Amino acid sequence: MLSFECDYNTGAHPRILEALCRTNMEPCSGYGNDIFTANAREKIRAACGREDADVRFLTGGTQTNRIVIDSMLKNYEGVIAAATGHISVHEAGAVEASGHKVLTVPGYDGKLKASDVDALISVFYADGAHEHMVYPGMVYISHPTEYGTLYTLSELEEISALCRRYEIPLFIDGARLGYGLMSFESDVTLQDIANLCDVFYVGGTKVGALCGEAVVFTHNNAPKHFFTTVKQNGALLAKGRLLGIQFDTLFTDNLYFEISKNAIDRAEDLKRIFKQKGYRFFKNSPTNQQFIIMSDEKIAELAEEVRFEIWERIDEKNCAVRFCTSWATTKDDIEALAEII
Amino acid sequence: MLSFECDYNTGAHPRILEALCRTNMEPCSGYGNDIFTANAREKIRAACGREDADVRFLTGGTQTNRIVIDSMLKNYEGVIAAATGHISVHEAGAVEASGHKVLTVPGYDGKLKASDVDALISVFYADGAHEHMVYPGMVYISHPTEYGTLYTLSELEEISALCRRYEIPLFIDGARLGYGLMSFESDVTLQDIANLCDVFYVGGTKVGALCGEAVVFTHNNAPKHFFTTVKQNGALLAKGRLLGIQFDTLFTDNLYFEISKNAIDRAEDLKRIFKQKGYRFFKNSPTNQQFIIMSDEKIAELAEEVRFEIWERIDEKNCAVRFCTSWATTKDDIEALAEII
Amino acid sequence: MLSFECDYNTGAHPRILEALCRTNMEPCSGYGNDIFTANAREKIRAACGREDADVRFLTGGTQTNRIVIDSMLKNYEGVIAAATGHISVHEAGAVEASGHKVLTVPGYDGKLKASDVDALISVFYADGAHEHMVYPGMVYISHPTEYGTLYTLSELEEISALCRRYEIPLFIDGARLGYGLMSFESDVTLQDIANLCDVFYVGGTKVGALCGEAVVFTHNNAPKHFFTTVKQNGALLAKGRLLGIQFDTLFTDNLYFEISKNAIDRAEDLKRIFKQKGYRFFKNSPTNQQFIIMSDEKIAELAEEVRFEIWERIDEKNCAVRFCTSWATTKDDIEALAEII
Amino acid sequence: MLSFECDYNTGAHPRILEALCRTNMEPCSGYGNDIFTANAREKIRAACGREDADVRFLTGGTQTNRIVIDSMLKNYEGVIAAATGHISVHEAGAVEASGHKVLTVPGYDGKLKASDVDALISVFYADGAHEHMVYPGMVYISHPTEYGTLYTLSELEEISALCRRYEIPLFIDGARLGYGLMSFESDVTLQDIANLCDVFYVGGTKVGALCGEAVVFTHNNAPKHFFTTVKQNGALLAKGRLLGIQFDTLFTDNLYFEISKNAIDRAEDLKRIFKQKGYRFFKNSPTNQQFIIMSDEKIAELAEEVRFEIWERIDEKNCAVRFCTSWATTKDDIEALAEII
Repeated sequence: MLSFECDYNTGAHPRILEALCRTNMEPCSGYGNDIFTANAREKIRAACGREDADVRFLTGGTQTNRIVIDSMLKNYEGVIAAATGHISVHEAGAVEASGHKVLTVPGYDGKLKASDVDALISVFYADGAHEHMVYPGMVYISHPTEYGTLYTLSELEEISALCRRYEIPLFIDGARLGYGLMSFESDVTLQDIANLCDVFYVGGTKVGALCGEAVVFTHNNAPKHFFTTVKQNGALLAKGRLLGIQFDTLFTDNLYFEISKNAIDRAEDLKRIFKQKGYRFFKNSPTNQQFIIMSDEKIAELAEEVRFEIWERIDEKNCAVRFCTSWATTKDDIEALAEII
Repeated sequence: MLSFECDYNTGAHPRILEALCRTNMEPCSGYGNDIFTANAREKIRAACGREDADVRFLTGGTQTNRIVIDSMLKNYEGVIAAATGHISVHEAGAVEASGHKVLTVPGYDGKLKASDVDALISVFYADGAHEHMVYPGMVYISHPTEYGTLYTLSELEEISALCRRYEIPLFIDGARLGYGLMSFESDVTLQDIANLCDVFYVGGTKVGALCGEAVVFTHNNAPKHFFTTVKQNGALLAKGRLLGIQFDTLFTDNLYFEISKNAIDRAEDLKRIFKQKGYRFFKNSPTNQQFIIMSDEKIAELAEEVRFEIWERIDEKNCAVRFCTSWATTKDDIEALAEII
Repeated sequence: MLSFECDYNTGAHPRILEALCRTNMEPCSGYGNDIFTANAREKIRAACGREDADVRFLTGGTQTNRIVIDSMLKNYEGVIAAATGHISVHEAGAVEASGHKVLTVPGYDGKLKASDVDALISVFYADGAHEHMVYPGMVYISHPTEYGTLYTLSELEEISALCRRYEIPLFIDGARLGYGLMSFESDVTLQDIANLCDVFYVGGTKVGALCGEAVVFTHNNAPKHFFTTVKQNGALLAKGRLLGIQFDTLFTDNLYFEISKNAIDRAEDLKRIFKQKGYRFFKNSPTNQQFIIMSDEKIAELAEEVRFEIWERIDEKNCAVRFCTSWATTKDDIEALAEII
Repeated sequence: MLSFECDYNTGAHPRILEALCRTNMEPCSGYGNDIFTANAREKIRAACGREDADVRFLTGGTQTNRIVIDSMLKNYEGVIAAATGHISVHEAGAVEASGHKVLTVPGYDGKLKASDVDALISVFYADGAHEHMVYPGMVYISHPTEYGTLYTLSELEEISALCRRYEIPLFIDGARLGYGLMSFESDVTLQDIANLCDVFYVGGTKVGALCGEAVVFTHNNAPKHFFTTVKQNGALLAKGRLLGIQFDTLFTDNLYFEISKNAIDRAEDLKRIFKQKGYRFFKNSPTNQQFIIMSDEKIAELAEEVRFEIWERIDEKNCAVRFCTSWATTKDDIEALAEII
């Protein structure tokens, strides 16, 4: 069945499978001490344009968020996030389970505002009782956000400057980073990301890999003995090659960016056909997640021929639904969808 | 280079790669809600001979140990293990990081004795001060052990009976379970395992998969909301199919047992050639890990042509070294090794 | 200097000191296994009118909140509280440090509404993705609240009924419980509290004790091995008698209620004199904490003769300030204050 | 009934109660921001002879051990202790509950040996797999030990030098420190303790206080925002004066040392009378805990007239029992005991 349910419902990009098959019987050491991982690390560092970046590989987004946040915060610190941020809502309390509070500021279509973060920190230090409160120890943003929206370069610069002023790290959740970078509306490059934040990750799971996220500590600031922390959290793969080979492939011949671009192109096609049919949009998203308003009747009808996700109820008769494109979405898929809707 | 370094230094069994390629573009829901995972679950349940077993998939051994132990213990309970047990020594304190003490009893070539466990629990309850101590809440054993040794059926029965008497669960770490079951010396079947313990796992990472462990809660005793606990621990794969497809393949046409058998046959070959050359053995292992005593000189010489692991120093001139066979070891590999040693 | 800074800035009620002196050289077993603790337990149980209540003693409010919440929640559960709740803001992330998220609903002068709690839980279960979210596992309210306000009996009944419908416990933080029960506006008795919630505590620290909170599990529902959990959290006093003697005294001859009444009477006096002088009130509090609006100028002037707390800024020229009465406040204190303001 | 059960079965030294009564109605700020706490801090710093020492007050030993250890270790580090150490056995897993493994070395009458610690650390770093293991991050010793024994100055110097060589802190649990310092066999002063370790505590609970331990970070090395960490752990007393007044009193006119000396003198009396009656000793203790071997018959007989603790079974007919003296034990108590045995 035609599926726009999410950007992780097919396997891996064929070149990744090809690389896995080609290298399969080559013996190499475990735990990421292999040549593929070394190559992937080097290529990502080069793409970021930072010699002082340190790159590590983990398997999934929640795992990455939990480990990065916990390893960079002190016990008395929490992490600031938009109220709608993934760590705040949809990670089953992973950050809190590692001992840290998520301190929320308002979300505006998934984005937080530097001014709100500034206010939170200012009030914290102004308050005589702040020693009884959780210290703001990091700012977390997702780019693209959970609603497919993007920060502009100047917004990122403002947040970055704020974090540097307060001497707390800025962490960018890039689970869908490729789709953000390749958006027609984006004025942000991978190098900008690497220069503006202290740690971020290049999402693989949602951008063509079977699994995997590449964590980049941007300036020789990987937490001490991070390897052991990863092991302790049960996140160390014995066959680290699985992650190395995938990211080595994704960062060879621009593959990561090309397949991200495909998702964006198909999303633009998708927007066009929905607009042509007169649908209204719930959010104005410049990336691969598109949110459309649809009547319950129409949803029931469509659901028989295509998979998509019901996002939230708008009113008694309508819901917002989400259609995702991905590296794997084809023009044929879009045409088939156009006929159905 | 010829490698006997470990049983996870090549990729996956070709049939697994073939299945990954074949199913790659088939869209399916995430988080394990896919048909491959359902099939894998059903096949493993059938192989265990228990209708009431619940099967879940995780990515690696330490992750599995940490999550299973934490989700089955109360905050005031610890887990009993051999002093040499993997959770006690080589998991970077993962169990303690989740809040639980590992209560150690002596290890005998990696195995614990029911009588020692009995003594520990008896003394605990006899001690007037036991309310100030960690409650023994589970018994953990690895089978095969970290030294390649095996429990006999009657030993497992004794430990199982003890656990049932004290009403605490028995957990079997089966990271190398296949190699144990197919050993010439084993009198234990998968069904025995499933009947004697409360939870165990069928290791995939070390037995032909890219990654993955199949956790079996043997009698409708999966911890409530285990899915959410897995998510909270950052252990939930978005593309759960990666685990489902692999285990579906491993449990089709007896593949898991056949490839385990290959490792055992090659280990017997390996023992034979080392014996023929007059080497002494550090441990008497009936499984795929073989521990040989070797002079430092010989080690240096061999290391130029073959990879293996230095296990521990025996005396000033000799070390114990470990040679592992696996599903991927061929007769050619053994012959090549025979020529070298 | 005259002080209305807080309700814990003097020592203990003289009868408590007298009891500590009188019993001082009497040897008794440690850890709460003493006759004074047994007596205190029995008297509190009687005052609650519940034979099936279990009473335990801890030293402070944050400690009690952290231990009670952690011991009653599963790892995948969080606790619902008003956004202004003490556990949410002023306990330095103690609940999160024990692994649980605080799920917030709006606070109305410190109180939460049953309808908001109901909405939060309903949406949680309605959401298809709820397995990726923190389960609502308890409702926490403070009575009186952090703003001195009180729930009415019917409000408590509504919240209690809601919790029972969803089968999650209701926990009442009674750090200032006495001041709530003795308020002129209260229609709630200690027995009501005990009947409507699953666990609550009778605050001692702020109501005449040197330290100590009496936790009441209302219906044979103390978490298993709670003693060991308390020990593990570093909250077990070797000289448990210190808590036992204090609560034995407080619950002898109605002392707890009498001294609470004194605080309320003095608070009414205080309200009267502030009203007479034309001050406006920031909150309408029926208990011992009074919030008054004062100009910065006046604050500076008053601060030279009397201690009070600046609560929050109202506008450029005015702040809300807090004046607390307590068991120890005398009519003379009020008269002295009347002259100053 | 005559009691030698433990050193915390009476209340507080009369001078402490007198101070509590005298200062009772004096209002002062909470959370340790009071003049008594400031005085206590200054007096202890002076007694230690270190201007750069930072002194904090907590309520009990397990609480102190848990918080000090957790606040000084990184997440990947554990604490080295004797297998019989209090944190290893009798604190209900408090250290593990905060996420850290207790790494044990053999105990010799409660003491650890520098050479064993050196071996553990050396092997750790020699082992190629140490990144998969818990890093040794601190050494914990108790002085006196759980068996009443003492380290000599040269033993402490050796352990201290070892810790400094490996750059890990040395932590001394001084729950009974006074009894150690005043022992006839001690060649260690409070200044020695302060100079040789990085953090230690002066036990109050077992040496005349109602509760309380004074933690000394010896060289400007208190963990950042330790106040907030204490709050987060539920260990911050609102009426911090309770601890301040007690330690202010204990460190006025040498009281702490005098009352410790009394316990030692009475322990010597006790040893003498047991020796005269022909009893054998289980341990040779130079402090206030005395371990005597006694037949079951004798134990049953004595238990009717005096309280003491059964420590452990020696053989079928005999146990080791513990008799404790304290600051409160009188010559009359000893004489009464002499008549009974």
